[in-house]
Amino acid sequence: MGMIVMGRALFVGRFQPLHRGHEYAIEYMLDREDEIIIAIGSAQENYTPTNPLTCGERIEIIWTYLQRRKLLDRCIICSVPDINNNFLWPRHVIALTPKFDIVYSGNPLVLLLFKTMGVPTHKITEIKKDEYSGTVIRNKILRGEKWRHLVPDETIPILDRLNFENRIRMLGGIYRIFHHEKR
Amino acid sequence: MGMIVMGRALFVGRFQPLHRGHEYAIEYMLDREDEIIIAIGSAQENYTPTNPLTCGERIEIIWTYLQRRKLLDRCIICSVPDINNNFLWPRHVIALTPKFDIVYSGNPLVLLLFKTMGVPTHKITEIKKDEYSGTVIRNKILRGEKWRHLVPDETIPILDRLNFENRIRMLGGIYRIFHHEKR
Amino acid sequence: MGMIVMGRALFVGRFQPLHRGHEYAIEYMLDREDEIIIAIGSAQENYTPTNPLTCGERIEIIWTYLQRRKLLDRCIICSVPDINNNFLWPRHVIALTPKFDIVYSGNPLVLLLFKTMGVPTHKITEIKKDEYSGTVIRNKILRGEKWRHLVPDETIPILDRLNFENRIRMLGGIYRIFHHEKR
Amino acid sequence: MGMIVMGRALFVGRFQPLHRGHEYAIEYMLDREDEIIIAIGSAQENYTPTNPLTCGERIEIIWTYLQRRKLLDRCIICSVPDINNNFLWPRHVIALTPKFDIVYSGNPLVLLLFKTMGVPTHKITEIKKDEYSGTVIRNKILRGEKWRHLVPDETIPILDRLNFENRIRMLGGIYRIFHHEKR
Amino acid sequence: MGMIVMGRALFVGRFQPLHRGHEYAIEYMLDREDEIIIAIGSAQENYTPTNPLTCGERIEIIWTYLQRRKLLDRCIICSVPDINNNFLWPRHVIALTPKFDIVYSGNPLVLLLFKTMGVPTHKITEIKKDEYSGTVIRNKILRGEKWRHLVPDETIPILDRLNFENRIRMLGGIYRIFHHEKR
Amino acid sequence: MGMIVMGRALFVGRFQPLHRGHEYAIEYMLDREDEIIIAIGSAQENYTPTNPLTCGERIEIIWTYLQRRKLLDRCIICSVPDINNNFLWPRHVIALTPKFDIVYSGNPLVLLLFKTMGVPTHKITEIKKDEYSGTVIRNKILRGEKWRHLVPDETIPILDRLNFENRIRMLGGIYRIFHHEKR
Repeated sequence: MGMIVMGRALFVGRFQPLHRGHEYAIEYMLDREDEIIIAIGSAQENYTPTNPLTCGERIEIIWTYLQRRKLLDRCIICSVPDINNNFLWPRHVIALTPKFDIVYSGNPLVLLLFKTMGVPTHKITEIKKDEYSGTVIRNKILRGEKWRHLVPDETIPILDRLNFENRIRMLGGIYRIFHHEKR
Repeated sequence: MGMIVMGRALFVGRFQPLHRGHEYAIEYMLDREDEIIIAIGSAQENYTPTNPLTCGERIEIIWTYLQRRKLLDRCIICSVPDINNNFLWPRHVIALTPKFDIVYSGNPLVLLLFKTMGVPTHKITEIKKDEYSGTVIRNKILRGEKWRHLVPDETIPILDRLNFENRIRMLGGIYRIFHHEKR
Repeated sequence: MGMIVMGRALFVGRFQPLHRGHEYAIEYMLDREDEIIIAIGSAQENYTPTNPLTCGERIEIIWTYLQRRKLLDRCIICSVPDINNNFLWPRHVIALTPKFDIVYSGNPLVLLLFKTMGVPTHKITEIKKDEYSGTVIRNKILRGEKWRHLVPDETIPILDRLNFENRIRMLGGIYRIFHHEKR
Repeated sequence: MGMIVMGRALFVGRFQPLHRGHEYAIEYMLDREDEIIIAIGSAQENYTPTNPLTCGERIEIIWTYLQRRKLLDRCIICSVPDINNNFLWPRHVIALTPKFDIVYSGNPLVLLLFKTMGVPTHKITEIKKDEYSGTVIRNKILRGEKWRHLVPDETIPILDRLNFENRIRMLGGIYRIFHHEKR
Repeated sequence: MGMIVMGRALFVGRFQPLHRGHEYAIEYMLDREDEIIIAIGSAQENYTPTNPLTCGERIEIIWTYLQRRKLLDRCIICSVPDINNNFLWPRHVIALTPKFDIVYSGNPLVLLLFKTMGVPTHKITEIKKDEYSGTVIRNKILRGEKWRHLVPDETIPILDRLNFENRIRMLGGIYRIFHHEKR
Repeated sequence: MGMIVMGRALFVGRFQPLHRGHEYAIEYMLDREDEIIIAIGSAQENYTPTNPLTCGERIEIIWTYLQRRKLLDRCIICSVPDINNNFLWPRHVIALTPKFDIVYSGNPLVLLLFKTMGVPTHKITEIKKDEYSGTVIRNKILRGEKWRHLVPDETIPILDRLNFENRIRMLGGIYRIFHHEKR
C-alpha cells in the first residue's frame, strides 16, 4: 500500500514575459506538489531589451493569470533581486521565499547551485524551447512577427495595457542608458 | 444615482510579526477598495531584534492568513528591500508592485513621500497602538508576558514552528553580529 | 503680442570627453531656455576604455569651458552615478539635480524614461554623429588619427595636462582590471 | 621681495542647509585661494531629520547664492555620496572633484583622513558654532524659534519655495521609513 | 580504546585590536583542532572609534603574531566584509573561507546563525571579559589608562608604528565623517 | 661595498586556478623581496565560467601550496573584492592588505593604477602566456585536453576534491543564472 508525499516546490524564472513554457512548468509542478512558489528573478531589472518589464508588472501578470485560473490558493508569488555571487544565491532565494521542499528548474546552473546547498532538485524538461522562450518572443516582436499565441490568453490584456509591444521596440537596440560600445 | 469607484490600494509594513493592527488595516482597506497590495518593507533584514523574521517567513505568515480567510483573490503580497534614499523610495516601491491607485498608511513619512510623487494617499488611524505593534509584541516576549492574543490566530502555528518566541529571546540584546558599542 | 516662457533644461551626457556635439547641444539649449543643467552620467566610472576620465576631471573640463565662454551664470554642472534600474533612473537624476522644466536629449531611452515619469522632453537632433562622438574621438586616438578639431579649443590644455591621449592608449585593449574573457 | 602662491581649495560640507558658518568659510577661503571647490557630502541622503534636503536642492541653494554674489567663476560645486569606508573616502572625494591643492575644514576627521593620503590641509576655526550649525537651525525650526538670520538672505526664497520649515517639522521625530526602535 | 578526530575550526572576530582574549581563543582551538581559520569580520570598516584599524593592518598584526609564535602552518587568516543580512551571513563566510568542520565562538548570534545553516558549533567561554575586550582597550586609551598588558607583546611594535594610541584619541568622539546627531 | 634593500611586494591575481605562471611570479618575487602579499582579486565572484572557484577555495589552494613549499612565513594571503571604480581600486587594495613597498604585476592596468597613486611598481614579464593562463586551462578542460601539467602538483588533490573539472564543464556555457542574451 503506497503513500503519497507531496510538498511545496520552488520555481524561479524571469517571466519577461510569462509564456506558455512557464504555464507548462506550473501545471507540471501542480500535478506533483501541493503548493508552488513562483519566484521572479532579476527583480531589480527593468526597461532593458532583455528585462523590459518591472518586477511589479511581472507580479501583476502572474497574479492575474493565477486568479483567472483559480490557482491563487496553491501558488505563492515572490520576487528575488540578483546578487552577483552565485554561491550565495540559493541562500538568498531561501531568505526571500517561504519554506519549500524541492526546486524544479530547467536551468542547469539553478539546479547545480541548489544541490551545492543540499536542497532536493527536479529537472524539468523544457518543451518547445525554440518558441516558448522570452528571448524568442521579444525577438519576434522586434521582427514584427506573431507572438501572442506564445503567451497565456489571460495575460494579453495586461501586456497591451502596458504597451509591451511598443516598449520592446523602443528598447530594441538600447541596453544601458549610456552606450558602452566595447562592453 | 451614485457611482462607486473602487480601485487597488497599497499598504506597506514590516510585519514583524503580522498583528491585529495589520489585520484591522487590511479589513479597513478591503471595505473601501477592490484589491489591496500588501508590501513587506525592510525585506532584506532578518535575525535582528527589530526584524527577527526573514522576508520569506513573513510572506508565509501573510499568505497563510489570507488563504484561511479566503482573501487571496483580493490581496497581492509583494516584498520591498530598503534603499537608503527616502526621495527615491516611493518610485522604488512602484517598480516592485503592481499598479495601484492609492496608498493607505498610518506612517506620516510614507504618506509624505508618496504625496511628493503625486500619488493619492489615505491616512489610516491606527488602533490600540500601545498593544497592536510589533515592538510591543517583541518586548512582551522578552519580558515573558502574554502576546498571542495580539496576533491573528491563524498565524500562531507558523510562529510556533519558526520558534518565534525563542528567536526573539536569542536575539534579545544583540543587534549586529559585531557589537558596535558606540553606534 | 506674444509672451516668451523659458525655463531650465536638463541635459545628461558622459562627456568622455566634452566634444563639439555637446557644445552644439549646449548652444541649442541656451537659445531656448534661461538656464541649463549639465549632468555628468556614469559618474562613478573612470580609467576604462569607454570612460577614461574621472568625474572630477570631467567637471574640471566643463567648468573651465563654461568659464571661458562666460556661461557659468546660466549653466549648473551636476554628477549622476549609474543605478542599474532604468525605471528608477529619472527619479535618481531628479534627486541629484536642481529643479528643471524639461529634458533635452538625443538618446531615445533617456527620453522614454523621463516621459514615463511625466517629465516634458525635447528631442535634440544630433549633428555630425560620425565625428562628434566620444567613441569616435577615442577610436581616432587609438588609431593615431587627428582628433583635436572635434573638441572645444578651451579644453585641449586640460586634456593635455591629464595625458588624455596617452591614457586612452594605455587603456586601449583593457576593460576591467581582470580580463573576464567570455563576458 | 615676496611671491604669492595661491591655488584651489576643497571644502566639504553637508549644507543642511547652507548657513552663515559656511558663508564665513567660503569668504575665508576666497581670501586665501584663487578658486574653491564646494563639495556636498552625504549626497545620497534626503528627507531625513538630519538630511532634509536632496542633493539637487542643496546644489540649487548654493548655486543661486554664488550667482547672486557673483562668485560662480571662482567656485565649483560638486557632490559626494557617502562610502562606508573612511580610509577610502579621501580618494573617493578626489575622484569626484577637479584637481585641488589643499583641503580646508573644521572637521578633525576630514583633516586626519586627507593627511593620511598626503594631501595638504588647513584647519578652519569655526565661528559661533552654537548658532552657525545645521543642527542648531533644524532644532530651532522644530522648537518654533527664529532661524532665518542664521542663513544667507539669498537662500531664504528657495528654502521657502521648498517648504523647508514644514519639511523639517514633518520629518521631526521620524528617521527611517520604518521605526527601528532599538537602533 | 578511543579515536581522536580533529579538524579545522573557524573563529570570527573584529580584532580591533588582537588582544589576550583572542590569544586565549586561538590557543584553546589549537589544543582541540588541527588547523584554524582566523576570519577578520567587519573587514570594510576602518578609521572609526569602534573599528580604528583597516583590514590590512589587522592582517599584518595577526600574521606577525602567528609568525613569531611559529603558528602560520596551522592558522589561515581570512577577511569577511559585513553584509546586512544575518540569515545570509554564514553562507557569505563560507564563500570567503577554506572548508572548515566546526565554528568556535563566544558570540551567541554567530553560534545561532551557523546552527541555522546546520554547521557544528562550539561555545567558547570568554575569559576576563571586563579586560580582554577591544572596547575596554580602546576606552582605556581614551582615558589615558594602561592597556599594553592586554594585547600580545608581539603586536605592540606594530601598534606603535601605526600610531594606534593616537589614532584612537583622534577618532575619539567622531563616528562618521558627518555628524548625524540624531542617529 | 653594496647594500641590499629588500622589502614586501604585492601581487594581485584571480587564481582561477593557481597555475605555473603564478608559481613563476611567486618565485621571481621571493628572489627579490623579503616577503610577498598574494592578493586574490574578484574575491566575490564564484561559480561562473571565468571565476569557477570561491574565494575560500582559492585561499585553501594557495595556502596549501605555500605550506607544502614551506613559504608561509614569507607570504601573506589576502582577498580583494572588485569595486567598479578603477581610480579608487589601488586605495581599496591598500585598505585590505598589510603595508607593502612595491607592486609586481604583468597587467598594464594594475601597473598604471598604482603608478597614479605614487606606488612603486615592477613589471613582471609573463612566461608561456599561451599555456600558463587560467583561461587556457579552463578552455582545455572544456575541450577535454590535458591541463594538470599547467598547475602546481600540490594543488591537484584539492582541485580534484572540489570537482574542479566537472564544475568547469557544468558552468561551461552558462554565465549568469539568467541568460541575458544580448549582453
